[in-house]
Amino acid sequence: MSLVLHDLAAGDGRLFSPNCWRTRLALLHKGLSFETRPTLFTGIPAIGPGVKTVPVLADAGTLVIDSFVIAEHLEARYPDRPSLFGGDTGRRLAWFIQQWVVTATVLPVLKMIVADIHARLAPQDQPYFRESREKRFKGPLEAVQAKARQDVEAFRAGLAPLRLTFATQPFLGGEAPTYADYVAFGTFQWARMMSPFRVLAEDDPVLAWVRRCIDLHGGAARAVTAEWA
Amino acid sequence: MSLVLHDLAAGDGRLFSPNCWRTRLALLHKGLSFETRPTLFTGIPAIGPGVKTVPVLADAGTLVIDSFVIAEHLEARYPDRPSLFGGDTGRRLAWFIQQWVVTATVLPVLKMIVADIHARLAPQDQPYFRESREKRFKGPLEAVQAKARQDVEAFRAGLAPLRLTFATQPFLGGEAPTYADYVAFGTFQWARMMSPFRVLAEDDPVLAWVRRCIDLHGGAARAVTAEWA
Repeated sequence: MSLVLHDLAAGDGRLFSPNCWRTRLALLHKGLSFETRPTLFTGIPAIGPGVKTVPVLADAGTLVIDSFVIAEHLEARYPDRPSLFGGDTGRRLAWFIQQWVVTATVLPVLKMIVADIHARLAPQDQPYFRESREKRFKGPLEAVQAKARQDVEAFRAGLAPLRLTFATQPFLGGEAPTYADYVAFGTFQWARMMSPFRVLAEDDPVLAWVRRCIDLHGGAARAVTAEWA
Repeated sequence: MSLVLHDLAAGDGRLFSPNCWRTRLALLHKGLSFETRPTLFTGIPAIGPGVKTVPVLADAGTLVIDSFVIAEHLEARYPDRPSLFGGDTGRRLAWFIQQWVVTATVLPVLKMIVADIHARLAPQDQPYFRESREKRFKGPLEAVQAKARQDVEAFRAGLAPLRLTFATQPFLGGEAPTYADYVAFGTFQWARMMSPFRVLAEDDPVLAWVRRCIDLHGGAARAVTAEWA
């Protein structure tokens, strides 16, 4: 078995990508050992033909692209290891949850920390990042970030489904985490690694769940450079 | 086997409760035959000691209260019938999805149709409904409804997770519906049965999924008095 995770690095080497965290935790959940190969944004195309995003998992030489596809790959290829999805229905519901995570967490959090991310990237990544994100958000990163932070309470209110869930179970997956937890947690790991801005209030049950996730798999998400939690 | 579903009736007898539709479709999914016993809002306490909400399922004389608890009950008691959850992870993820459904669909839709619901209730239910909902929403039902309809585009935008999911699979459960579909569909069945206001645009993939749900189990959700879809 030879697994390589192509992961995204900031200027100081910290591996901050929310989608790569999903994959990292999925690999740990499966108990698989893997080698991490850090790349910069500008280095992604060199991973392989047609590669435009990370994570990319090289499994025995085959490149698997996209975090959800990688999770499906791991589940199919290593069925005797702990399950990520708990069956096909769980896999499909996790896909819906990923859509919710993207719209309700990844996009608003990106706006709230986008200038801070830029500041932490390697110099050779900064022009690409600024240009592409300023085009997407139609404004300077610093202005986008400042404006988005004014809406932090609306963002927090939008996390009600997580909050209500954690009133009765510790993880989205129930008593123990499954892939849906990693999908949702990736956003907060990214946020805490790239910005001091606290997207969650101290007394939020969602933050308590973030801390439970940080403790998983030997504290893998704790052994990083982070600014809160 | 003797199953009785205590369901909520409007003034003309139409059974409109979103939560009862979840249960009705869960029973049909399991292929169980059951008797429906309509009640009014003001008749709910007479169902049994401590009963404050419907649906209530009487299974061999035992009352099971709360739509999600009923689904869990059906899954545990009739394990050889088609599964509602696809396993424990699917059950837990469905619980999260229910929290999303409540916050992102039930509450905004209720506001958009609340005066229309009132108009369709039995006369003896109207004072209770008006008083309790006006207290909750801090204003006359007609004003709450009119104001909420101005925000229909924000509501529709908030359905992005459903829309994105239906781009790649026909049901939340995948190729076929599972309980999460019934949870989410209940809101739209309620809306179309109680108000002519179209909460979904004609070209919305979410509406296409609503129509797929209407066709399920012999068109059970079609055989009702409804105002759109």
